[in-house]
Amino acid sequence: MTAKFVYAFGGGTAEGGADMRNLLGGKGANLAEMASLGLPVPPGFTLTTEVCNAYTRAGGSYPDGLRAEVEAALAAVEKTIGKTFGDPDDPLLVSVRSGARASMPGMMDTVLNLGLNDETVGGLAKSSGDERFAWDSYRRFIQMYGDVVLGVEHHHFEDILADHKDAKGVSLDTDLDAGDWKNVAGDFAAKVEEELGAPFPQDAKDQLWGAIGAVFGSWMNDRAITYRRLHDIPEAWGTAVNIQSMVFGNMGDGSATGVCFTRNPSTGENAFYGEYLINAQGEDVVAGIRTPQPLTVAEREINGGDLPSMEESMPGLFGELDTVRQKLEAHYKDMQDMEFTVQDGKLWMLQTRTGKRTAKAALKIAVDMADAGLISRDEAIRRIDPGQLDQLLHPTLDPAANRNVLARGLPASPGAACGKVVFSAAEAEALAAQGDKVILVRIETSPEDIGGMHAAEGILTTRGGMTSHAAVVARGMGRPCVAGAGEIRVDYNARTLTAMGQTVGEGDVITIDGGRGEVMLGEVKSIQPELTGDFGTLMSWVDEVRELRVRTNAETPEDAETARKFGAEGIGLCRTEHMFFDPARIVNMREMILAADEDGRRAALAKLLPYQRDDFIELFTIMKGLPVTVRLLDPPLHEFLPNTDEEMAEVADAAGTEIREVKARAASLHEANPMLGLRGCRLGIMYPEIYEMQCRAIFEAASEVQKITGEAVTPEVMIPLVGAKAELDILKDVVDRVAAEVREAGGAGVEYMTGTMIELPRAALTADAIAETAEFFSFGTNDLTQTTYGLSRDDSGSFLDTYRSKGIYETDPFVSIDPAGVGELVRIAAEKGRATRSDIKLGICGEHGGDPASVAFCHKVGLEYVSCSPYRVPIARLAAAQAALGVEALVNA
Amino acid sequence: MTAKFVYAFGGGTAEGGADMRNLLGGKGANLAEMASLGLPVPPGFTLTTEVCNAYTRAGGSYPDGLRAEVEAALAAVEKTIGKTFGDPDDPLLVSVRSGARASMPGMMDTVLNLGLNDETVGGLAKSSGDERFAWDSYRRFIQMYGDVVLGVEHHHFEDILADHKDAKGVSLDTDLDAGDWKNVAGDFAAKVEEELGAPFPQDAKDQLWGAIGAVFGSWMNDRAITYRRLHDIPEAWGTAVNIQSMVFGNMGDGSATGVCFTRNPSTGENAFYGEYLINAQGEDVVAGIRTPQPLTVAEREINGGDLPSMEESMPGLFGELDTVRQKLEAHYKDMQDMEFTVQDGKLWMLQTRTGKRTAKAALKIAVDMADAGLISRDEAIRRIDPGQLDQLLHPTLDPAANRNVLARGLPASPGAACGKVVFSAAEAEALAAQGDKVILVRIETSPEDIGGMHAAEGILTTRGGMTSHAAVVARGMGRPCVAGAGEIRVDYNARTLTAMGQTVGEGDVITIDGGRGEVMLGEVKSIQPELTGDFGTLMSWVDEVRELRVRTNAETPEDAETARKFGAEGIGLCRTEHMFFDPARIVNMREMILAADEDGRRAALAKLLPYQRDDFIELFTIMKGLPVTVRLLDPPLHEFLPNTDEEMAEVADAAGTEIREVKARAASLHEANPMLGLRGCRLGIMYPEIYEMQCRAIFEAASEVQKITGEAVTPEVMIPLVGAKAELDILKDVVDRVAAEVREAGGAGVEYMTGTMIELPRAALTADAIAETAEFFSFGTNDLTQTTYGLSRDDSGSFLDTYRSKGIYETDPFVSIDPAGVGELVRIAAEKGRATRSDIKLGICGEHGGDPASVAFCHKVGLEYVSCSPYRVPIARLAAAQAALGVEALVNA
Repeated sequence: MTAKFVYAFGGGTAEGGADMRNLLGGKGANLAEMASLGLPVPPGFTLTTEVCNAYTRAGGSYPDGLRAEVEAALAAVEKTIGKTFGDPDDPLLVSVRSGARASMPGMMDTVLNLGLNDETVGGLAKSSGDERFAWDSYRRFIQMYGDVVLGVEHHHFEDILADHKDAKGVSLDTDLDAGDWKNVAGDFAAKVEEELGAPFPQDAKDQLWGAIGAVFGSWMNDRAITYRRLHDIPEAWGTAVNIQSMVFGNMGDGSATGVCFTRNPSTGENAFYGEYLINAQGEDVVAGIRTPQPLTVAEREINGGDLPSMEESMPGLFGELDTVRQKLEAHYKDMQDMEFTVQDGKLWMLQTRTGKRTAKAALKIAVDMADAGLISRDEAIRRIDPGQLDQLLHPTLDPAANRNVLARGLPASPGAACGKVVFSAAEAEALAAQGDKVILVRIETSPEDIGGMHAAEGILTTRGGMTSHAAVVARGMGRPCVAGAGEIRVDYNARTLTAMGQTVGEGDVITIDGGRGEVMLGEVKSIQPELTGDFGTLMSWVDEVRELRVRTNAETPEDAETARKFGAEGIGLCRTEHMFFDPARIVNMREMILAADEDGRRAALAKLLPYQRDDFIELFTIMKGLPVTVRLLDPPLHEFLPNTDEEMAEVADAAGTEIREVKARAASLHEANPMLGLRGCRLGIMYPEIYEMQCRAIFEAASEVQKITGEAVTPEVMIPLVGAKAELDILKDVVDRVAAEVREAGGAGVEYMTGTMIELPRAALTADAIAETAEFFSFGTNDLTQTTYGLSRDDSGSFLDTYRSKGIYETDPFVSIDPAGVGELVRIAAEKGRATRSDIKLGICGEHGGDPASVAFCHKVGLEYVSCSPYRVPIARLAAAQAALGVEALVNA
Repeated sequence: MTAKFVYAFGGGTAEGGADMRNLLGGKGANLAEMASLGLPVPPGFTLTTEVCNAYTRAGGSYPDGLRAEVEAALAAVEKTIGKTFGDPDDPLLVSVRSGARASMPGMMDTVLNLGLNDETVGGLAKSSGDERFAWDSYRRFIQMYGDVVLGVEHHHFEDILADHKDAKGVSLDTDLDAGDWKNVAGDFAAKVEEELGAPFPQDAKDQLWGAIGAVFGSWMNDRAITYRRLHDIPEAWGTAVNIQSMVFGNMGDGSATGVCFTRNPSTGENAFYGEYLINAQGEDVVAGIRTPQPLTVAEREINGGDLPSMEESMPGLFGELDTVRQKLEAHYKDMQDMEFTVQDGKLWMLQTRTGKRTAKAALKIAVDMADAGLISRDEAIRRIDPGQLDQLLHPTLDPAANRNVLARGLPASPGAACGKVVFSAAEAEALAAQGDKVILVRIETSPEDIGGMHAAEGILTTRGGMTSHAAVVARGMGRPCVAGAGEIRVDYNARTLTAMGQTVGEGDVITIDGGRGEVMLGEVKSIQPELTGDFGTLMSWVDEVRELRVRTNAETPEDAETARKFGAEGIGLCRTEHMFFDPARIVNMREMILAADEDGRRAALAKLLPYQRDDFIELFTIMKGLPVTVRLLDPPLHEFLPNTDEEMAEVADAAGTEIREVKARAASLHEANPMLGLRGCRLGIMYPEIYEMQCRAIFEAASEVQKITGEAVTPEVMIPLVGAKAELDILKDVVDRVAAEVREAGGAGVEYMTGTMIELPRAALTADAIAETAEFFSFGTNDLTQTTYGLSRDDSGSFLDTYRSKGIYETDPFVSIDPAGVGELVRIAAEKGRATRSDIKLGICGEHGGDPASVAFCHKVGLEYVSCSPYRVPIARLAAAQAALGVEALVNA
């Protein structure tokens, strides 16, 4: 803890500065910075965040020495402003505001007009020459202080005010005069005394310490705790408290208040932008009671408003403000969001901070500033939040459009989509084939639904989390998805969904917003994404900086094309099983599974071979020589088996057997914990003929594409779920044997690699042995997270929310890699793998590959590439560049 | 590789010795040792195991220099014995035998009488004076060599011999004379030529090299490979080849052959024990064609036989043999198993090795030898195989009894049991209550069956592995169990089981042998265990030596009593959920699960509290102040829900709800992978009131027992499935709060600890953080194995056999801890835990706690205790002592 508790600012100087944000909070640091720059800041001082922590730790008492420092700082303010705190003739009034390191708008408490009492109110009336203003200010103070500091509930004051207006027969505050406000203030004070059994505090210093305590205390209120949890803000940061002399924008028509941005926060255009109100307080602009007026002529003309802009009504002050704008942007080298007040013809700056902006504006501002030489290209890259970039890649709902929200779920895959409701994948495919746009609504999805998901504009499920099948597949396909909308009841038989008492039938139109997790009735207008020049420019800078390569997870030609368009440098994960769900193939797949012996399986596999070979020919052709990692069959076989009697009968027919047999086989394949059962390379060990067929398809396809294009194809054959080196040894022999057979049968000599997914803790722990055989590792962090945590993605939904709300998991470990456990295994495996084989190729292909914090982790561990779903490729590219630039991504601890 | 390939022995000297077992194999090393001791060993020499490895690596060719060494060694034998190899007048004949480091009886090849050909057979006839013997030997040689070396199938020779006997009209070999054997030999040789297109080799040296190659080659035959896999013998050990001059026990009545033990291998009694046959070859004793005669008068009298013992018929030679016996036992300091031959009045020792013995004999011999000062007590401890000890703790089937084996399964829990077949737990309890002995037969068992399993004498399942529910619970209870007997079909409706075409109905009697995995029709006689004085003596020595403490996994008073009897020093795992399956309680448990809200759950929990408190009172009383680790509720709640409509209706009634509701709730609790779902501490986080009730029961019980006995009770509260420190923090607060509440309500101040199971990889990897809160770790290696391998115990049965047969898993990782993966996590966690809290208490409570190799691992890692099922407590005690003595247990690599 530093020795100094209080930092003064104002009068053209300051003890703090913008670089002391951690100690002074954002607001305090920037007030100090503005004061140092000679900008007109009302004088004041900041109590540091360390005081807050000390206060919290000590259960509500202050560190020694604080009072003396506050007294001294207050005296300095009095001297600067020429007024005295508690002076009955011309009192200094102050505001007491919170100010944390990270912005937490509205979460903590504020007290304004502090210093007023039954005596000083008269002094204010005298010095302002406005008795009504003075008594209005006093009653506002009693109300605010009573609520925030003394805990007298808000409604008491509202009731009194309403009574007064009723008594006078008026309905607006503006109809009350000075005498009315004096009566109101008197009744407010009496109410406080009635509630608390003690009079409203009259001593200004008592008021001040009460307010300081309340603001520090508000750091631990429920709202603030919740906000911090949602925004990953540590409790240990604490808040600062800013005490600043009051200025008033409501002292007549020579006064005003406003909010402005140095550039347009929606479009990023380099034009002054803002709103102001004459004779008003800051709250009035925010509260929306009066319609604010535009700051500039240009804005007024765009909006077609009647009211004059500040540029017109207060040209001199506007000029001063524009100078401040230019000074601040040049100083901070970023777009600023400022608050100002004009008191009786004098401009005061109350706040500046880096302005929030849309993704589009962020891009434009960063590129413009870099082009103008204000910031470097590296800095431009640092400025873009990779998560926000996602907004630019999908259609979004028009922010102006009306939303009739029917239900909420998880924002599982971004983008907006609109279409007719269908309740089955088959129906989705049928309607889409007719040219209809459909939204596929399912309780949950399974691999069999993939065709329908592809055909749909968007997907809505009522069960499952951010990493449910629907969510993962939708993100991979770039389809908007709302998952786990538990308020919705789906009735497959009736073909309806019900929510909030409303029933939606098949064919009715709904809109989903996958970025916000909302489901709306009817069509909501949407905006198509535009990959503007700024996007392209920034991404080209990004590619020069990053060290990690970015691949994609893709198995369909469409996904591969999309990913290439987004800059993917190869396929990091091609899930071959997805190729078996096509209706034309699933029958053969089922025939294979149901076969009584190896001969039967081989016969069915022979039918699947041409399909799979053709799939690979397409993929290899699209990828034009870029590496393609093909994962051999991974899921448990029962995932392919039919669920309905009809389908069972069809399979029985095709396989020339009885439905009874099919059911018996399905039952025999049932597993208590399929995630931990007969899947992955275990299938390859038990049924080598399956992997043989897949390898044959890979090598025959690669050979053919090589012959046609004359360019080398570089498949990387990946064996999933290896837990023991011997598994890989046995299966690498299969790969090598089939490669040799294809070559001997006249195929082109295909260069290939054989490697494994590291997705089991044991694989990570024995990676040194496995690397003797594996030429590459791809970290399958989805399954690695499941096994490391002992946590099923499918089943964690019932408690994950509670876990996050209690702070047990700081982030969802399926979204952002867990460095302490899963990440530690990745680190161990990378280290052990390299110890055995120094040039081993290391990548990641779990969902984490598209998460910025996880990308930063991968950079740190020194992986060669990340692989993610096509729509996350640009995000991963940016995150990789930021990691290379040393930007600290928020990694959960 | 050493430079020397061949080690000679015989003539009172030897180049090798007993300490060269790895190089010379067991047989060769001991032949050399006996020769060095001056015992009468037929001279010969040994080709080392390194020659075998070189031969295998080189694909069947010999290292340079081998031939010269063999020639030289053969010449030395010729000189010692005074005969020449291939001499037509008086040929040296040799045997060529395998001899690996570990005994692999009958797995590899042997050739006898080598050196005979059409010429030397005459010399043998002359030198032996027995033409019939010579031609019989020759035809035996052609047959053996033809079969073993030349690959001519056995049946060809048997056919020819049968033809000859038919032609002569006799049925016994003994009815054939010299001429007959000469004809047979001629026909044998002709057959070989016919089959191979080349004459039977006549050159003795050629014969020798052929035999050497065949024996080395037999190291890689299928039988040997299978045997090695089953006995965990590495291929890299190789076999030696022993070439030794032949001696004959079938050269008339002055010749004999026999097998003997220095002590009785069944009882361990210190009495010479063995069998012999006059005028016979070694094979005759083993083959059982002639009934061997006892070696000593004492034995003859015990068996009541008519035939004279060797002590009577050959008193001088018997005396010589008895001298050899004493010399060898004094030399080897262990009971020896010897083979001897008397050729024409001269005793020859053909083999000595450490004799196999029953568990009972092993104990007696070790204790007797230590008492006699022949070996130290430490050595006595080293001598007992902990796995074998198990035999002494359970009833076993009378080895003499006839076994009508109906089916085989896994030897899941040792011991023999006999009773009436029942197909449900309820039926088992009902019949047992009437005093009937029953065997519970289920396809698989679930926690609801526990009452029935307890009531039954033994358990038989048709599905599941060594760590299935049935197996684990049965071992814990000490009930014999045969699991996964897949040949048996159970029909619950018909109440029958079917195997090998035989149908067994409810009430029919079967016997199971859980030590061998056999199921027999009817009653088979069994022998009750007797914990003799030798057992007690040895265990007292064991306790002085071991450093690991041994606790037990127990939750019933019966198990706790048994474990105390077996020397348990506390309870390492009390699974509280087992206390909820009692019919009187399960209804309340279900009521709790089905409750709509916390109030409802609390109401149901209040009914469960007295039961659970009484359980703990009993346990704490039995354990008399020894530590008791109580694991709070662990399994997913759906394990408690009813499966049948009847039961569902009962629950609905009790809970005052509809069966529809019960079904809906059950469905909502369904999980795709329950192993990775809402269980363990996740239940405690979601429903803290459950853990509260359990803690209250623990502390109230401890308090009450303390008050009654005046002795301190030391409960250790264990939170299961912790993966993040915050989980433990939250739940430790619950524990501490309830402990304080009980104390404040007038309870005795109970000293307790709070800790966690380390059963998830993430817990192990973050053990440093977890140890900030945890006062102890108990390694739950069952679940840790499941998550580290990504391998479900319930589902691995379908491929575990294949995995073992392919050598992917050297041992079942659920039986013996996997040092490279699971063990590595244990090591990491122990290290990290101690780094944070140097005195953290570390133990293991998985099934591995009773496995000797795993106990050795725990000793190495420095755990404080292991905990295992009651019947394995003595085994763990012994294994812990052996680990402390540095005995290398077979840990899979």
